[in-house]
Amino acid sequence: MNGSDVICDTLIAQGVKVCFANPGTSELHLVAGMERRADLRCVLGLFEGVVTGAADGYGRMTDTPAATLLHLGPGLGNGLANLHNARRASTPIVNIVGDHATHHLPFNAPLTSDIESLARPMSDWYGRIDSVHGIVSTVADACRAATSLPGVATLVVPAEVTWGDADPVQPPSLARAAGPSSVPDREKEQRAVALLRSDRKTALFLGGRALRAETLALASDIARKTGASLLSPFANARMARGAGRPAVPRVAYATDLALAQLGQFDAIVMIGAEPPVAFFAHPGMPSRLLRDDCEVVELAAPGSNVALALESLAEHFAASRLVLDAPPARRGGDDDLPLGALTNDTLAELIVRLLPEDAIVCDEALSSVTRLFPTSYDAAPHDYLQITGGAIGIGIPLATGAAIACPGRKVVTLQADGSGMYTLQGLWTQAHENLNAITIILANRKYALLLDEMRRMGVKPPEHLARPMFDLTDPVLDWVLLAKGMGVEGARVGTAEEFIRMFKVALKRDGPFLIEAVLA
Amino acid sequence: MNGSDVICDTLIAQGVKVCFANPGTSELHLVAGMERRADLRCVLGLFEGVVTGAADGYGRMTDTPAATLLHLGPGLGNGLANLHNARRASTPIVNIVGDHATHHLPFNAPLTSDIESLARPMSDWYGRIDSVHGIVSTVADACRAATSLPGVATLVVPAEVTWGDADPVQPPSLARAAGPSSVPDREKEQRAVALLRSDRKTALFLGGRALRAETLALASDIARKTGASLLSPFANARMARGAGRPAVPRVAYATDLALAQLGQFDAIVMIGAEPPVAFFAHPGMPSRLLRDDCEVVELAAPGSNVALALESLAEHFAASRLVLDAPPARRGGDDDLPLGALTNDTLAELIVRLLPEDAIVCDEALSSVTRLFPTSYDAAPHDYLQITGGAIGIGIPLATGAAIACPGRKVVTLQADGSGMYTLQGLWTQAHENLNAITIILANRKYALLLDEMRRMGVKPPEHLARPMFDLTDPVLDWVLLAKGMGVEGARVGTAEEFIRMFKVALKRDGPFLIEAVLA
Repeated sequence: MNGSDVICDTLIAQGVKVCFANPGTSELHLVAGMERRADLRCVLGLFEGVVTGAADGYGRMTDTPAATLLHLGPGLGNGLANLHNARRASTPIVNIVGDHATHHLPFNAPLTSDIESLARPMSDWYGRIDSVHGIVSTVADACRAATSLPGVATLVVPAEVTWGDADPVQPPSLARAAGPSSVPDREKEQRAVALLRSDRKTALFLGGRALRAETLALASDIARKTGASLLSPFANARMARGAGRPAVPRVAYATDLALAQLGQFDAIVMIGAEPPVAFFAHPGMPSRLLRDDCEVVELAAPGSNVALALESLAEHFAASRLVLDAPPARRGGDDDLPLGALTNDTLAELIVRLLPEDAIVCDEALSSVTRLFPTSYDAAPHDYLQITGGAIGIGIPLATGAAIACPGRKVVTLQADGSGMYTLQGLWTQAHENLNAITIILANRKYALLLDEMRRMGVKPPEHLARPMFDLTDPVLDWVLLAKGMGVEGARVGTAEEFIRMFKVALKRDGPFLIEAVLA
Repeated sequence: MNGSDVICDTLIAQGVKVCFANPGTSELHLVAGMERRADLRCVLGLFEGVVTGAADGYGRMTDTPAATLLHLGPGLGNGLANLHNARRASTPIVNIVGDHATHHLPFNAPLTSDIESLARPMSDWYGRIDSVHGIVSTVADACRAATSLPGVATLVVPAEVTWGDADPVQPPSLARAAGPSSVPDREKEQRAVALLRSDRKTALFLGGRALRAETLALASDIARKTGASLLSPFANARMARGAGRPAVPRVAYATDLALAQLGQFDAIVMIGAEPPVAFFAHPGMPSRLLRDDCEVVELAAPGSNVALALESLAEHFAASRLVLDAPPARRGGDDDLPLGALTNDTLAELIVRLLPEDAIVCDEALSSVTRLFPTSYDAAPHDYLQITGGAIGIGIPLATGAAIACPGRKVVTLQADGSGMYTLQGLWTQAHENLNAITIILANRKYALLLDEMRRMGVKPPEHLARPMFDLTDPVLDWVLLAKGMGVEGARVGTAEEFIRMFKVALKRDGPFLIEAVLA
């Protein structure tokens, strides 16, 4: 028995079932440890951004951490962008990074780097196993931190720990109390109750786990009984959407629109969310989006037990988890589906109408199909996952992890073409694991979001020397070939009719499929 | 005139001619500044690892820094692996990272992160422009640091600096004295001379810019006149190779082989290199590769003026830059080229024989074509560039930057298939810029290096549960489709005959080409 065996056994005892991995030399003993453990599933990503994004998707769908396995500082570096998104999504992840053997570090071998400095900005918790004897406690601490914060717990494992001799141990199993825990703050609750009973225009600002079906139902009933509005941040980790769930609007992405939207509120009660701020600073625009005189009550912090806070609040209004008096899902009915040119709006409508029951939608559409969210309140019930931290290149990996977590559900990814290129390698894992993942590439063949942003800032978009910074036309990307090159079948569509046909084909398949939707 | 104009003008005045970029919202004013400057060429990468790897290739071939343009912490994160390689190669790079406007940072907007903590481990210099008034001095400092260290100078540019009003300024032009400068250390030189005059077995250990044609010729003559051996590190930024240049062996990658190789030396004189250490720690193996009693003279540190140190040393032995008494290049001559199965050795021999004059070879072959280096001493003269920091995914980006730097030369990349997947997006830039870059994918369809490492460590390679961590067979990657999907033509070859034919086709073309060599 060696240290790797103890690490694996402790992870398993703490409830970790999947390890998304891209190992290198310093992690090979750990991989050998996994070879001997059927209850820790190894999933290979061909690039670390796929690994961390998949761990994010898995964690969002299960509320339990997957492990990652990354190789030294550069491997961690490649995974940082999607760890950033995971951290912003408060996703539980045990982010395992191998390091050189401790005695080897002073020699400054080629792959040596300051892993802690790289890891801290994207980690909610950081630890390094100091010896074979410290494995159980440090691994358990990491798992506990990932689950209870919840968030990204980075665990650095020096090579000598993985190969060192170890005695069999009885790792502590996961305490049942783990997960976000906190008692409602009575003073804040009283302030919230007073606001909701007043005639001041108040919003319940719901984020994180407050956006799950049960909590949303409760919040919706409180809103109905108090006249409050429901609102959510622009970007959310996971949101229960579709027929039977309340249609909670999001804060607009564009600062001017967000200011107008939030300016109507005299007061706002935060439940699992932080006060909304501008996504980017723009010249002459404020960072803060709430009115200066808007009263803010932070009833439940993002990492706290939002369900408990909502339940406690609900008691004041005798609110309950009523089934919504909501319209049934609009389904297609081929008769009245929009046809013709594949515009953003047409595609949004087609996805709303054709989305299967209980789908998981991973949205990295960015500037495309923006009508999807405002119109999908009466799509079939689904979970809606977004890019949370603005670090593009999450769509395909997120879908990969969600599909591993929920093999019985269809995962539908709305993937902008520009950002899809950052982590396209995830398609290989979808093929390798034969995942029920449908990727819709929204091919506008430019960095359209950046051109929009330039206009918003009053800067003239380049037409000459710097124009190539925004165009993906020379050459055009062929996503059907890219997918096929990684073993994923696909098709290109340029009309609504073609999209309908291929989306239905994709839904009937067992395994991944890619549709490149060339937008009009 | 705004801050972006001043930044661009200062970069240009400091000799920066190319900006490899993957900008985001916070860098848009800078892009607008580039739109107005024909003498700062923008080259788009579809992923930041391509951007930083290309800047590395450009800097290795020109000894002047390219600029990068990266978006906030996550964009920097994606570029870190290849910055790690660049730093280990001592490549001059002005690594520009946009940040939120300073007044926006306290609001912790979704894309906020600790950029400094992320940047420091992979930067030789770090600075942040504090205001519009600080632009000229900070940008010039960054350029100076990149050139004179030489190395990676990370320059953080907050958004308000890019859009702030600025007066036209006369930026300082690049001081001619820039570049590595130092005077030879007379005491160390005397020790080196004494060693070389003694009967102790001594090696000249040459790294960095000591491996260029002129310095190598000088070192070679010193060796000839003193009986010293020439030796270089396992991984080097750029090495003049081929007929007419001395055949300098490298330290072996495998620790046991390196120990045997270095164990023969009583003394070693370091010129532009650091003492060799094991690439990885292995159980029971030392980190230090030199004998404990081996005398080490660090004549010229990696960042110092190695040419000057060699010239000064040469005077003691009346050594000069003689043309080597070396065999002429072995060229193909179709008659005696090896034919049949495409083994690693056959492919190495074919590349040696068919390599065109003055080619730039970018080597990320890892465990494949390992016979290339020992046999390419009599290939046509060429520059040989390697992965320096062990952070895989550099081959295609490095070639992209080298081809931008040297448009008249053929760039031939030896790219292992597994590591090629990390930054395959660079193929699009090769197509977009119509670069003379030939990518040879060495398709062994596994992480062969890791399986080799496992065997070396005495660990049984997995056969069951963890075996999928090492295989790229399910599905097989189709590199011809992947390349075509990004606009690069290519072909798959499985025999020597096919390789010969397609390599000749590739050499005749103007623009990029990819050959997937399926190894026997």
